[in-house]
Amino acid sequence: MQIQIVAPDAKSVSCSFRDSSEFVKDDKGVWIGTTRSLDEGFHYYTIKIDGAEVPDPNSKYFFGAMRWGSGVEVPAKDEEFYSVKNVPHGQLREVLFFSASTDMTRRAFVYTPPGYEQDLEKRYPVLYLQHGWGENEYGWGAQGHAGLIMDNLIAEGKTKPFIIVMTYGMTSDIRMGGMANFDIKHFEKVLVEELVPYIDSHFRTLSDQPHRAMAGLSMGSMETKAITLKHLDKFSHIGLFSGATISKEDVDKTEGFRDKVKLVFVSYGSKEVGGAGAPRRGGEPEANTKGLRDAGINSHYYLSPGTAHEWQTWRRSLREFAPMLFASETEKAN
Amino acid sequence: MQIQIVAPDAKSVSCSFRDSSEFVKDDKGVWIGTTRSLDEGFHYYTIKIDGAEVPDPNSKYFFGAMRWGSGVEVPAKDEEFYSVKNVPHGQLREVLFFSASTDMTRRAFVYTPPGYEQDLEKRYPVLYLQHGWGENEYGWGAQGHAGLIMDNLIAEGKTKPFIIVMTYGMTSDIRMGGMANFDIKHFEKVLVEELVPYIDSHFRTLSDQPHRAMAGLSMGSMETKAITLKHLDKFSHIGLFSGATISKEDVDKTEGFRDKVKLVFVSYGSKEVGGAGAPRRGGEPEANTKGLRDAGINSHYYLSPGTAHEWQTWRRSLREFAPMLFASETEKAN
Repeated sequence: MQIQIVAPDAKSVSCSFRDSSEFVKDDKGVWIGTTRSLDEGFHYYTIKIDGAEVPDPNSKYFFGAMRWGSGVEVPAKDEEFYSVKNVPHGQLREVLFFSASTDMTRRAFVYTPPGYEQDLEKRYPVLYLQHGWGENEYGWGAQGHAGLIMDNLIAEGKTKPFIIVMTYGMTSDIRMGGMANFDIKHFEKVLVEELVPYIDSHFRTLSDQPHRAMAGLSMGSMETKAITLKHLDKFSHIGLFSGATISKEDVDKTEGFRDKVKLVFVSYGSKEVGGAGAPRRGGEPEANTKGLRDAGINSHYYLSPGTAHEWQTWRRSLREFAPMLFASETEKAN
Repeated sequence: MQIQIVAPDAKSVSCSFRDSSEFVKDDKGVWIGTTRSLDEGFHYYTIKIDGAEVPDPNSKYFFGAMRWGSGVEVPAKDEEFYSVKNVPHGQLREVLFFSASTDMTRRAFVYTPPGYEQDLEKRYPVLYLQHGWGENEYGWGAQGHAGLIMDNLIAEGKTKPFIIVMTYGMTSDIRMGGMANFDIKHFEKVLVEELVPYIDSHFRTLSDQPHRAMAGLSMGSMETKAITLKHLDKFSHIGLFSGATISKEDVDKTEGFRDKVKLVFVSYGSKEVGGAGAPRRGGEPEANTKGLRDAGINSHYYLSPGTAHEWQTWRRSLREFAPMLFASETEKAN
């Protein structure tokens, strides 16, 4: 990708993509640099001008790394699955709910599928979907394109329609100062005791355990594992993207797992696991997942080809995960 | 307001607020400057670092001046009316609708009032609400706080609940290159022939003329005047914030005006009209409005104290305008 910025009096300009070319100033005061060949999909970045790290004034802004900043979309060969098409669209709704445990009004985004406003008798299953570290409740709707992914899957008949709820998951991190002190219990309370009842009373949900799922990316997958395994009376489908996995040991030590969990989905970008120099996250995810399947658990593993710990991996993960959700239960309920 | 930015190697730093102090670098490489005393409310701004005009990395980002950039909220003595309170909240919904006339999927934001998801029999009047030049469909929901203003008014019983629809109004400007070539007919078609039917088929609206209003700020008020006067079969309530006014001549030359128009609301910031050196916009708005009232038209004029052509004027305008909308018609319909 080429980056241009007008900075006639600057002495040096650079960007946060490693291995970028040196930026050179042309005779109009425009600095031009070229990044290395970037993976397909979405990337956060910043520009540095004489030591000041700033957003690119020519970009749109997204929340990542604990602040609003620039992001770029590198066209992907498979971008069709999250592109805007002339199909029925759902709605992405910003909702505000009061949280007694944190004594504040909190924000969530709620995706309702196409048709939600037409057939007012119909009720829907719900997926609670979490962002990663340093991101927030905007992530899945904005850079994640969760709504478009769902609209397109539904238009093609590939998934049952369901509601998606996205809220801020770093509840205690903000207060305590850093991941080292992160304690899941604050977020767990907000999600399970406050947000779930709010959603069930403000949306036409199917509010029983078989119709409630949770998934998350990176830190959100850790939260998903911790919360779902502790509340199997409330969640039946589990999605872990680029982070946690569930092992046979987890199953054995979690009472009721075999009866209550209808799906374990684990995914990674291919550049996250194996391969030279790639970090191996979450133990042995593929082996773990196979182990679960051998033990009779409905368990799936997905590896996103050619992507790293980034949004293209998670968009594809949602595309793969959604069709497996509520596949039989929804039939029964409707 | 004090602005700080880390820029250790910069030669000069400034900001876009006129009459700001010179920025001075401290021994840690932080440049610090102070703006003049700013009017209460919301302001767009940029920072300039060695000739590069960039957003402030410490701000949130808003769309204005045809791009996403920094905005700052100066606490206002009356900010309580758009603050987040523990009251029932409506939803701000992002919807995508296909527009045949522009051959693309377009975005709108739709505010639905608290209770919309509880009583599924109830239908609501609709206000179409437009942003100003260089802004977009995010403006009223983000920097305008339209949702919070309505939530608070409704909680206090000061306004009837209604739906607000906000979409992008510079439809032809984008294509044609600049306001000089702006032709209302493209946006008029999108709004009247495409968006209104979409909203009426996807939301529980009262879809007759008495229950449909339009308002806008600045350029949006020009659009509102042009579109409502041409489509009095569709719109009954008219709000003009900081821009257009309607004169006795307009009434006389517009067939059916006296029968069909139930409200004309005109507003300005006090710093926009009269006063030394202040621009006098839209002719003689107060005199025009009084002239309409003398002629028997339900007409109201509001002057926002101490504010200019900025969002604080428009937030207050919505607060004043909303309670006058659908005041009697809603009773009849429900």
